[in-house]
Amino acid sequence: MNNSPSFGFIGVGALGGYYSTRLEQAGEEVHYLLRQDYSTVKANGFKVKSIIGDYELRPQNIYNQVELFPQVDILVISLKSTSNSSVIDYIEKLSKPHGIILVLQNGYGLEQEIAQKFPDKIIIAGLCFLCANRTAPGEIHHLDYGMIKLGPLGQNSDSEVQILKSIFENALIPIEVSPSLLQARWEKLMWNIPFNGLCAILKCDTKDLMSSQDIQVLAKEIMLEIQMAALSDGIKIEDSFIDKMIHNTLKMKAYRPSMLLDVEAKRPLEWDSIFQKPLKKALENQVKMPKTQVLLEQLKFIDKNQLKNT
Amino acid sequence: MNNSPSFGFIGVGALGGYYSTRLEQAGEEVHYLLRQDYSTVKANGFKVKSIIGDYELRPQNIYNQVELFPQVDILVISLKSTSNSSVIDYIEKLSKPHGIILVLQNGYGLEQEIAQKFPDKIIIAGLCFLCANRTAPGEIHHLDYGMIKLGPLGQNSDSEVQILKSIFENALIPIEVSPSLLQARWEKLMWNIPFNGLCAILKCDTKDLMSSQDIQVLAKEIMLEIQMAALSDGIKIEDSFIDKMIHNTLKMKAYRPSMLLDVEAKRPLEWDSIFQKPLKKALENQVKMPKTQVLLEQLKFIDKNQLKNT
Repeated sequence: MNNSPSFGFIGVGALGGYYSTRLEQAGEEVHYLLRQDYSTVKANGFKVKSIIGDYELRPQNIYNQVELFPQVDILVISLKSTSNSSVIDYIEKLSKPHGIILVLQNGYGLEQEIAQKFPDKIIIAGLCFLCANRTAPGEIHHLDYGMIKLGPLGQNSDSEVQILKSIFENALIPIEVSPSLLQARWEKLMWNIPFNGLCAILKCDTKDLMSSQDIQVLAKEIMLEIQMAALSDGIKIEDSFIDKMIHNTLKMKAYRPSMLLDVEAKRPLEWDSIFQKPLKKALENQVKMPKTQVLLEQLKFIDKNQLKNT
Repeated sequence: MNNSPSFGFIGVGALGGYYSTRLEQAGEEVHYLLRQDYSTVKANGFKVKSIIGDYELRPQNIYNQVELFPQVDILVISLKSTSNSSVIDYIEKLSKPHGIILVLQNGYGLEQEIAQKFPDKIIIAGLCFLCANRTAPGEIHHLDYGMIKLGPLGQNSDSEVQILKSIFENALIPIEVSPSLLQARWEKLMWNIPFNGLCAILKCDTKDLMSSQDIQVLAKEIMLEIQMAALSDGIKIEDSFIDKMIHNTLKMKAYRPSMLLDVEAKRPLEWDSIFQKPLKKALENQVKMPKTQVLLEQLKFIDKNQLKNT
């Protein structure tokens, strides 16, 4: 891969929209696949309100048809995992041979699927610690954080990870590198399962949630289930990591996790990748996660019921 | 106790209002303690719409002050358990020496408290299988069921249970007698914990809830936790009982459990008596109830939050 690779973003919501425009702002070649926001962005460009500096951007390369989208060096999957049924098809069409697939999604298990279908690709997961909302078509509000933790699937992609790191950091996107994709995934689930789950079910932000001592205890107990599940998957997460995560969540400003926003907007919920896949993995390894399972079933119920009522 | 004992009802909501008026309709002496509904009932009496026959009743003995209420033979505690702080005081003042205390409440543990304070009383629990709503002051809608399962605390109250049974049945209230109060309590919790809990948290009726296969499985798993907890408390509940309860809930018409109505009306929730007390009992006996605990913490959160927002 050369040092000026082309990027393609599949999924230009809050997260994909923020990272893609940061990259183009910094001079990278970025291609965007847009659907409902296409005409607004074509007319007015992107407007980003960000805690590290607002900007507007008229993107060079936007498409509303897959057929027009060129093959790129780095295909970024920033779709919601609820749309994963089309990911394989996108990779087939839009990724160069031996290209990089950067998966910026929550949850567990998508990379293994991609690796099976495309053994020639370099697959890297990016776990995003970003608070951002899409406030209108083409408008993104970046509220806090923004770091991406990169974790390569398999060995021998050190040089690609380093190139990505330097490109992203040049675009004001902080990068950490995790020794393993699985480690990064399980660490992210440690936050996503209790906080996305409980906020979505109880319809509250993290500050309201954590104002209850009992809920803090419950969140920690759920994290201990995830710690056991990770261990059974070969990943050791220290107790101190759990304490730090509780502490950080207590300290951070009121945040509305994406799953809460999805419930409020009656969009499909990412219960499969964030809850069900890790739970299945744990069960295969004889680890039970009863509290996580209650959240999963409640979320599936909410998801099914809101579809029924729309 | 003579065969025409006097009744006093503390708590004249849907449940207390239905049973008390049925008894007076059948010729019993009934005394009612009313608060907010006093003036309406004084002016217009009770109006009951019931699947087994509507009726109106101008009650003989209503009071809005404890000081005017006479001591009765049978004091019926039909308050919500969230108001239990005042129960001891009512019993002190309104129950005849050696009187009967009939506790028509959900949950676990109130009778033991009463027994400790009043060793001379005869204490009987009544587990009510009643679908009824209070639709306006003095107006009650009896939708379905109505059976009371009587369970005496301790021995030697067989004759009192038989007298109650005959009086209630004469007033069109079906009675079953349970060999033990604890057995009856745990059997009732089998329904109340999963269905009151999940319907209140997910804001749906039993029919919506049970339309999900996954939730049926979850409900059964929660019941298995309760079965283990009951066993540790000396009470054996058969697997067939659980299956029957799931089956009955699937078959019954859409029902909005009382805790759902409480959430909708932002009233205090009975999480202490229905969830926390049984859970504590189980923990004392080294039985964990992780799924029940998730529901408890969610309900406590909803309860606290709705108080904050009113």
